Amino acid sequence: MSSAKDFRPKARRPRVRDRFGPVLASERALVAAVSKVYEAWGFEALDTSAFEYADALGKFLPDQDRPNEGVFSFQDDDEQWVSLRYDLTAPLARYVAENYDALPKPYRRWAAGPVWRNDKLGPGRYREFWQCDADTVGSASPAADAEMLAMTCEALEAAGVARGAYVLKVNTRRLLNGVMGTIGVAEDDLATKLGVLRAIDKMDRFGVDGVRLLLGPGRKDESGDFTKGAGLAPAAIDAVLAFVGAGRATRAETLDALAKDVAASSERDAGLAELREIDAVLATLGVTPAQVVFEPGIVRGLEYYTGPVFEIELLMETVDEAGASVRFGSVGGGGRYDDLVARFRGERIPATGASIGVSRLAAALAAAKREANDSEDAGPIVVLPFDKNAVAACFGYAAELRNAGVRAEVYLGGSGPKAQLRYADKRGAPVAIIVGGDELAAGTVTLKDLKLGAELSKNVADNKEWREGRVAQATAPKDALVAEVRKILAAQQ
Amino acid sequence: MSSAKDFRPKARRPRVRDRFGPVLASERALVAAVSKVYEAWGFEALDTSAFEYADALGKFLPDQDRPNEGVFSFQDDDEQWVSLRYDLTAPLARYVAENYDALPKPYRRWAAGPVWRNDKLGPGRYREFWQCDADTVGSASPAADAEMLAMTCEALEAAGVARGAYVLKVNTRRLLNGVMGTIGVAEDDLATKLGVLRAIDKMDRFGVDGVRLLLGPGRKDESGDFTKGAGLAPAAIDAVLAFVGAGRATRAETLDALAKDVAASSERDAGLAELREIDAVLATLGVTPAQVVFEPGIVRGLEYYTGPVFEIELLMETVDEAGASVRFGSVGGGGRYDDLVARFRGERIPATGASIGVSRLAAALAAAKREANDSEDAGPIVVLPFDKNAVAACFGYAAELRNAGVRAEVYLGGSGPKAQLRYADKRGAPVAIIVGGDELAAGTVTLKDLKLGAELSKNVADNKEWREGRVAQATAPKDALVAEVRKILAAQQ
Repeated sequence: MSSAKDFRPKARRPRVRDRFGPVLASERALVAAVSKVYEAWGFEALDTSAFEYADALGKFLPDQDRPNEGVFSFQDDDEQWVSLRYDLTAPLARYVAENYDALPKPYRRWAAGPVWRNDKLGPGRYREFWQCDADTVGSASPAADAEMLAMTCEALEAAGVARGAYVLKVNTRRLLNGVMGTIGVAEDDLATKLGVLRAIDKMDRFGVDGVRLLLGPGRKDESGDFTKGAGLAPAAIDAVLAFVGAGRATRAETLDALAKDVAASSERDAGLAELREIDAVLATLGVTPAQVVFEPGIVRGLEYYTGPVFEIELLMETVDEAGASVRFGSVGGGGRYDDLVARFRGERIPATGASIGVSRLAAALAAAKREANDSEDAGPIVVLPFDKNAVAACFGYAAELRNAGVRAEVYLGGSGPKAQLRYADKRGAPVAIIVGGDELAAGTVTLKDLKLGAELSKNVADNKEWREGRVAQATAPKDALVAEVRKILAAQQ
Repeated sequence: MSSAKDFRPKARRPRVRDRFGPVLASERALVAAVSKVYEAWGFEALDTSAFEYADALGKFLPDQDRPNEGVFSFQDDDEQWVSLRYDLTAPLARYVAENYDALPKPYRRWAAGPVWRNDKLGPGRYREFWQCDADTVGSASPAADAEMLAMTCEALEAAGVARGAYVLKVNTRRLLNGVMGTIGVAEDDLATKLGVLRAIDKMDRFGVDGVRLLLGPGRKDESGDFTKGAGLAPAAIDAVLAFVGAGRATRAETLDALAKDVAASSERDAGLAELREIDAVLATLGVTPAQVVFEPGIVRGLEYYTGPVFEIELLMETVDEAGASVRFGSVGGGGRYDDLVARFRGERIPATGASIGVSRLAAALAAAKREANDSEDAGPIVVLPFDKNAVAACFGYAAELRNAGVRAEVYLGGSGPKAQLRYADKRGAPVAIIVGGDELAAGTVTLKDLKLGAELSKNVADNKEWREGRVAQATAPKDALVAEVRKILAAQQ
């Protein structure tokens, strides 16, 4: 620290959050609830490290001089490039490839932790944020995909998202492949495929007419900016729109519509068979159409997914801190990615997973709670040594309260009674225990009901009056401390 | 992923651990137990990000071109240097400095999370490891230091370290300052001070005679390597050794010995007063000398701490995986650091903290458990679809079990009965539920007690015999599934 005398750094953060209070409590409660469900379904916890070799993460390869776009990368002491993980799936693929022979097959793991992306910040968009994932590696069965869906529903509800406040929208890449084949887009014509998928993905924003333009020649927006389209012919556009529009209220109806409205092909049939098997498992598990629907308009991870894909959409309306209405939309999703482990091993290993965006979902739940006007949790009981000689006795009282299951702390600053009471207020303490010279001598404690005091103070002209006066406070023998605190806490409920 | 076809990366880790199974469970249980104690004592959770501006972390300043010694650093997209946090205290100092006016004073927070150090690997030494800290910022009172000690004892015991299996050894930097002053080491003679502290720190390894050499001219080890000493005169060496040797069985006796054996000075008196106040609070809280002793030989964070310091030492003997005896020694510690926030704000802000090395302590507890020969936790019940058409029914059975509070999963691989049973073994399943064509038709399930089966198989010449045969298994109506599983689990206890 010797150089600290010469240089005084500014206390600031590199565009990342400090989490504390209700936000942190909410994110932690969410991870605890979700992971408990994952565990119950037989998934095992795995915690990989924050950083991986850049080549193992796969998005950026080591032949680049500074692989620092989107991910945070740095050179290790041996000059090798490492990157902070940008999701929990790429490290899983590395782990599975590294330990393949020793793992049970299928291998089922869950993981929760921070991931890092060098993205632009925005509402609910952070450079460090938490995800909570479950993955099944080594099963090609659509039943494994169905399990992800059913388990995700259970996890969301365990986390406090009411049934009806969310929906999982499921599609399969194979139906998309079928449509592409039918309209004559070549397997390796990635540019057109991407153009079609990006157009479909804009349905929410631009509607059918806008998507029709994006599938065809292109679309000019209100500012005059032109977005080039996928260049499909009118009949091809109709085929794509028929597919995208095949979503119905129930999974069975959507399956019927897809069979009717989408031209037959082997990929279409494979996709329909996948969805039918998923539906059968969901039905066994009692998963309703209000929880999981088939939605052909869902597009996700263009080159990443190989089979069923899904998005978790929140339906509840929430308000932001300024009181404005916010629709959170997607808070996670997942799907089948059969090629990720193959990067390392050559052979294809089927895998499917689900990811819940913890930070986003917790923010949504906090916003919903804000709307419901829930109050925050109370702070600890604060024991105040009004007399300097009372510190040790105060520790004894705080320990008594903790042993009775009540959070309690001793004020340890050097200030007098007024500042001590302000401290107790700031800590959100429901009750302050005051131990001054009188109490020490008499073997008593003074209990101040801070919640009642705050209410009474509304009727007091001078705020100073109640704080210094003996409003909402009473003195009791020290042996009665726990009983008296319990009485006050019960009355505050 | 398109480039994956050309380049096949190796699945490997940058010298960091994957945590799973008992190690991860043990570290998580430890964090949960310790943080629950911190919460009960009135500390609030704070989670800062993985990286901070390098200058804010303080150990390495931005005028260096590559501040990558000991910490992992990289340049952000705006060219500023950021570093992965190497402990949880430096980010706390930044947080307090950034939010000083809004925080209650004293500010009390706990934090748990990974930290990163580019150290050499060794037993219990990792490049990514977890710490669990509590700190009180804004209290100069030794009562705050005493609180850290008492709370750390409670946290250790909550984490499963029995009383008697650990001891907290407390010293204060001010006594050391007093001795330095008495023997004539100038305030700003950092080199000599460091030499003395380093010599004291070697007592465990080299004994009094070795330390005497290191305090004087220097010491030659068995290989002939010479370590230069602090260069003290004989009388000064005697004074240092008298101080270091003043530790007694109880805190009161040590205080007496220090008052007798260490020459009077204002710093000595201040140090004794600190320790006396700490002892008074510890006595109130019933903390015994078996839990906390005063030990003048304790040296910690040479330029970092300004007052009381302590080490958490494990006393239990443990065995490593190879069966060799291991003494884990220090698994954490802490102390008073009054200058850390001052780096940012100029003004000195008193602070004291405690840190438990989660990864190290969990490793020690795991080793102790290994010695006690505890068995690992059982895996989930595995439901096996011996018939391909049984998958949906299997999901129903697994859901039934989960609803009854029992972990359960369905085998989702594509293999036959034998591989399915091997899978159930590998998962550590106590019971396998078999659903084949017969069971489907009859509305029954077959339950296989894998624990009993494994025992019976010891008496079977051919392991294949029991696996394929109907050893330790019985068929029951499907409605009796939960009751039958409970019966088997109860019998396995």
